[in-house]
Amino acid sequence: MQAPKGIKKLVDILSALPGIGPRQAIRLAFHLIRQGESFQKELEDSIRDLRSAKICSRCFYVHESSGQLCDICLDKNRDQSVIAIVEKETDLMSIENTGKFRGRYLVLGELGRGGVLESDQKLKLKSLKSWIGDELAGRAKEIIIAFNPNSQGDFIATQITNEMKDSADKVTRLGIGIPSGGEIEFADDETLGGALQGRG
Amino acid sequence: MQAPKGIKKLVDILSALPGIGPRQAIRLAFHLIRQGESFQKELEDSIRDLRSAKICSRCFYVHESSGQLCDICLDKNRDQSVIAIVEKETDLMSIENTGKFRGRYLVLGELGRGGVLESDQKLKLKSLKSWIGDELAGRAKEIIIAFNPNSQGDFIATQITNEMKDSADKVTRLGIGIPSGGEIEFADDETLGGALQGRG
Repeated sequence: MQAPKGIKKLVDILSALPGIGPRQAIRLAFHLIRQGESFQKELEDSIRDLRSAKICSRCFYVHESSGQLCDICLDKNRDQSVIAIVEKETDLMSIENTGKFRGRYLVLGELGRGGVLESDQKLKLKSLKSWIGDELAGRAKEIIIAFNPNSQGDFIATQITNEMKDSADKVTRLGIGIPSGGEIEFADDETLGGALQGRG
Repeated sequence: MQAPKGIKKLVDILSALPGIGPRQAIRLAFHLIRQGESFQKELEDSIRDLRSAKICSRCFYVHESSGQLCDICLDKNRDQSVIAIVEKETDLMSIENTGKFRGRYLVLGELGRGGVLESDQKLKLKSLKSWIGDELAGRAKEIIIAFNPNSQGDFIATQITNEMKDSADKVTRLGIGIPSGGEIEFADDETLGGALQGRG
């Protein structure tokens, strides 16, 4: 379906965003037109506001502090020698919401489908390694690779484990098990196997 | 999940858009931050460009002509006395793409879940009726109610049929049948019944 000329540019930009297909992009553009100018202005303003967001030079999470580092990296009450490597900012937020993690993070960016790390992801791992060298005398207490437990995540986690194993006392992954509220009967072999292994 | 302060406004606006949930809104906001300022500016510009889009005072489709009417309503080669009532602009675009309809439209707006017409939808129908009164001496050749064939669409189509039956020689709906490329074996009773009825 060809979008009308006047909305084509917006449709192109919207359909390049993650999770938005060309049809939804067209529907969104029409919706924005119907919402009128004041709504459109509010949306523009809120996008402009993003410019005050900065990316932490240590963990690559988004922040608005005055310096280079985010609140988590600046927090002296957190154990900076325990590092969780996550794919997405939303994964970091989910882990923070548990209130059970008091270490720091590395936001690696979404894993590509090819099972290889992108060049900027390699740079981020390199910067973590050299930070561990400088700040922790070359050895972190623990690196937790907090990727989704699927074949792609497993594959890249193995690469990172090899890469980082000399920079940490241990390199771990999140436990596989029955989700809270789930049923044993419906768990697949992998999940149930993980739950048995992680019992305690 | 609570969005960080700096992106909260954008997340609120995005999650109010059709088809975007709160989680996707957060993910989009982080994505936009990562894309950087030039991408953000381009998106703002393309939203600002929407201001040049106008809504046709006759059919309520979006247009960029200098006058009040869209190209379809201005087209003297189209039969303005055959009127398709559609829900969404994208439905209009789909019908236009077939190249098989040479009448005009009325874009009614999405049907609510309650099975009742919103007040602006009632106004649009009223304006169609009075236009038929003024321009077609009170009688259109045909009004096609081109809603999705589901219980909600059927219900409102019945109301509109009653409302408009004195303003047109006939009020019709789109034919129900096996989609091209589909299989009889997998068609439900309603679909197959419609296909039998619409055979020819």
